[in-house]
Amino acid sequence: MSLARLTGQVHIIGSGLLGTSIALALKQQGVDVSVEDISPGNQALAIDFGGFRKIGENDEPSLVVVCVPPDVTAATVKQALERFEAATVTDVASIKVAILEELLALGLDLSRYVGSHPMAGRERGGALSGQADLFVGRPFIICASQNARSESVSLVEALALDLGASPVRLSPSEHDNAVALVSHLPQLVASLLAGRLAESDLADLSLAGQGLRDTARIAASDPKLWLQILAANSVAVLPLLEAYSSDLQRSIHALKDVRASGSIAALAKVLEAGNLGIARLPGKHGARSADYVSLVVMIDDKPGALAKLLTTIGEAQINIEDLKLEHAAGAQVGLVELAVLPASVSKLTDLLAINGYRLAG
Amino acid sequence: MSLARLTGQVHIIGSGLLGTSIALALKQQGVDVSVEDISPGNQALAIDFGGFRKIGENDEPSLVVVCVPPDVTAATVKQALERFEAATVTDVASIKVAILEELLALGLDLSRYVGSHPMAGRERGGALSGQADLFVGRPFIICASQNARSESVSLVEALALDLGASPVRLSPSEHDNAVALVSHLPQLVASLLAGRLAESDLADLSLAGQGLRDTARIAASDPKLWLQILAANSVAVLPLLEAYSSDLQRSIHALKDVRASGSIAALAKVLEAGNLGIARLPGKHGARSADYVSLVVMIDDKPGALAKLLTTIGEAQINIEDLKLEHAAGAQVGLVELAVLPASVSKLTDLLAINGYRLAG
Repeated sequence: MSLARLTGQVHIIGSGLLGTSIALALKQQGVDVSVEDISPGNQALAIDFGGFRKIGENDEPSLVVVCVPPDVTAATVKQALERFEAATVTDVASIKVAILEELLALGLDLSRYVGSHPMAGRERGGALSGQADLFVGRPFIICASQNARSESVSLVEALALDLGASPVRLSPSEHDNAVALVSHLPQLVASLLAGRLAESDLADLSLAGQGLRDTARIAASDPKLWLQILAANSVAVLPLLEAYSSDLQRSIHALKDVRASGSIAALAKVLEAGNLGIARLPGKHGARSADYVSLVVMIDDKPGALAKLLTTIGEAQINIEDLKLEHAAGAQVGLVELAVLPASVSKLTDLLAINGYRLAG
Repeated sequence: MSLARLTGQVHIIGSGLLGTSIALALKQQGVDVSVEDISPGNQALAIDFGGFRKIGENDEPSLVVVCVPPDVTAATVKQALERFEAATVTDVASIKVAILEELLALGLDLSRYVGSHPMAGRERGGALSGQADLFVGRPFIICASQNARSESVSLVEALALDLGASPVRLSPSEHDNAVALVSHLPQLVASLLAGRLAESDLADLSLAGQGLRDTARIAASDPKLWLQILAANSVAVLPLLEAYSSDLQRSIHALKDVRASGSIAALAKVLEAGNLGIARLPGKHGARSADYVSLVVMIDDKPGALAKLLTTIGEAQINIEDLKLEHAAGAQVGLVELAVLPASVSKLTDLLAINGYRLAG
């Protein structure tokens, strides 16, 4: 029996990370899912991995989800619209204006097409990285063009909800501008930073702390995919990159002569703007990160030590809002940073002291 | 009774985050610690907070640790050398060449001076952020000039070991070049990125995921402190920033016309260099991060849920090498990313399945 909002067959084209994850999530809810991939090897792998079925000759899916790389998305959507004459077709590419322009240039009737972008991913791709919970709690952007039927928009919204995601409706250009800021700019910034590590002295890198690790982390993402995303969204990314570059040039100019008039003010402005920007980022569940207080606790780096700490905290009915294990280079101890609501701080501090944990102060 | 390598009195000048943390750590080990601060209010706060004592009129500390902002470090070291004629004096400023040059310009006998840099900190400063375990497992860089007595170098090394840190000997310029790469460049990159968020649309920021959060996180650091660090280490930071800027200019040029010959190759080079750089970063305890495998598990976002998961894992004697709680915007569920050694993956996967946890695949 299906627990899902979606009724009827859903057909997934493309069995990479996103296609496989969508198929896993829908199958788990009892939806009739079929999967295909242009590569017979990839298709067989995904079908084995997820226990999916191939599409039958006379199947008439009500929804087709195109999960292929951005550069072949429009062509694949076109084929799907022609092949399944009653189906709503969506795609999950992380850029939306370029795809829509390609489709419009093909002169298609787009009443059954609704673009989307589930904002979830991993640094690792492929069917075997697929997970049914990939989209849970994440924004799922729906970009309906003016031509789209309302029934088709509703169907894609049902898909978002069945994946456990939060549907957000945006126009294609609103989408592209937003992701240029929150996703594409950070990707390039991180890749450029990590690029500076590529030819550096390994001894210097041994001094790296959590700051560098966090700042550069997403530079581990797939270059082929990101090349397509950046190329397709260059119009939205460029002004952000140029503004970033102007600020960088001002910093370089200031550092060339820190005693010159205005140099210190220019550097201070960059650092203070950074403070302001961070403060505007929403925290967990939409709350501001400033709403939480962090405590750092030292634990042994062995099986069960973290569990013991968290059991103690859980039994006291204190909720941990965020948790980070810190790397302690060269040492066999762990530092755990716990974020809690301000109201829980004194209770937690007392609890940790009573239980012999070492903490700030 | 003292458990410490250090014998004799240690006097801390400056009771901010680092001074207070050093005093806490040494006091915990039974070392005779006195604390002073140029601000009577700050001194009283730190002494109340840590239960320290003031310096006595006839005290003769064997080690003086100068923990004041970089711009007043050299002057404070000079005063300390003159005031305590038998003491070794060290400072903890995050830049070392500029401090040494200032001291040499003052024409001092530097046989009792050894610069250092404990590579630990927090985004939040002040005595009340102090913690005895701040330096545990972190690199503690010791920059002895040619003039330094070997007894003084040994004393600073004993300080590093008593703090639980790992002493690393570098020349001042080796130090400044290394931190320019692993600390100062990332700081500016993150501040410039977060600066782009300062005037952006809040609706766009609501789409931010963990990628942007991690890349920008350290932009929350203290602008006043960082202004001094960047200004003092401009010589080492500038070439890195200019190389970063050249790569950025090439990316901008390529994005301006992605169809032009060489554009795609230029972008691919940036993204691939980012992959290479990340792969060169040592992971936890000096191991490469590629040595671990990550699994993502879904848990309820309520007290005890994470503890229950980790108890299950701990009881099975599986060690968690790294752990990250992922934010699930708008949802009341948590995603936990667990990193384990490859040898533990199948055992962990089976264990989680048996215990009803939802996982990839």
